[in-house]
Amino acid sequence: MQPLLKPFVGLVLVAGIAGSASAQSPFAKPQDAIKYRQSAMFIMGQQFGRIAAVVKGKRPFDKAEVARSAAIVEEMSKLPWEGFVAGTDKGKTHAKPDIWTEAAKFKSRQEKLEQESAKLAEVAKGGDLDAIKVQFGATGKACKSCHDDFKKKD
Amino acid sequence: MQPLLKPFVGLVLVAGIAGSASAQSPFAKPQDAIKYRQSAMFIMGQQFGRIAAVVKGKRPFDKAEVARSAAIVEEMSKLPWEGFVAGTDKGKTHAKPDIWTEAAKFKSRQEKLEQESAKLAEVAKGGDLDAIKVQFGATGKACKSCHDDFKKKD
Repeated sequence: MQPLLKPFVGLVLVAGIAGSASAQSPFAKPQDAIKYRQSAMFIMGQQFGRIAAVVKGKRPFDKAEVARSAAIVEEMSKLPWEGFVAGTDKGKTHAKPDIWTEAAKFKSRQEKLEQESAKLAEVAKGGDLDAIKVQFGATGKACKSCHDDFKKKD
Repeated sequence: MQPLLKPFVGLVLVAGIAGSASAQSPFAKPQDAIKYRQSAMFIMGQQFGRIAAVVKGKRPFDKAEVARSAAIVEEMSKLPWEGFVAGTDKGKTHAKPDIWTEAAKFKSRQEKLEQESAKLAEVAKGGDLDAIKVQFGATGKACKSCHDDFKKKD
């Protein structure tokens, strides 16, 4: 242990992330993997929801705000996947076991979401609301098609 | 409502983010603001914890992995702050009321974390483990100094 690290060792230990990850999973415990993917999905959902409100005319269109939300959606779209560690269809999760039995299909849905989110971020930077509406629709379809097949309803 | 939006309106409604945000807060309800900031903090903590494990020699040093973790830490360091909406020291949170009564101090701590995280991401890209250790220490100090003053222990 280097002296440098001492001041915040407690912090790291409290968070339960003190490097005890197994070779298979970068997460210390299965619930961390679940919480990780849910955290990314939650942030994505909140920012996507703000764009939804603009698209539906329930929130004024502010170009910079929508561009920021879309950039966060894009960043978040890359994160959840490593949280789908084998065996984490148990616990506090809506993940269907099909995620692991139909891995190639799940992977293609991930890639679709990442592609559509990247396009949304690009279009949002442009600031054309009509174009944003179209790409918002395509991105929402990517969310939905994955949720329909791989997320439990309750 | 445009036909385009129909397929995933349910999705948005289920997530409870259907544009009912007030003028003061971009979040539909206080607990969403709390969950938003906690989600960003959780992802940040997980990725920072992986770097911690490398720095402490408990995980092998993989340049690309550490650079990725540090890039995510940098992205996450920008997100939690909008979740500290006035009145959200109540509920499932460890936030101290001082966050709102000492807003300037809290703001300076945010900025410090963002600066140190950006430096960590930059240094991690370089791939020099000794430099990463030093900047990891500086970033951890930024986490800790804010937690010490603004986060409840229990």
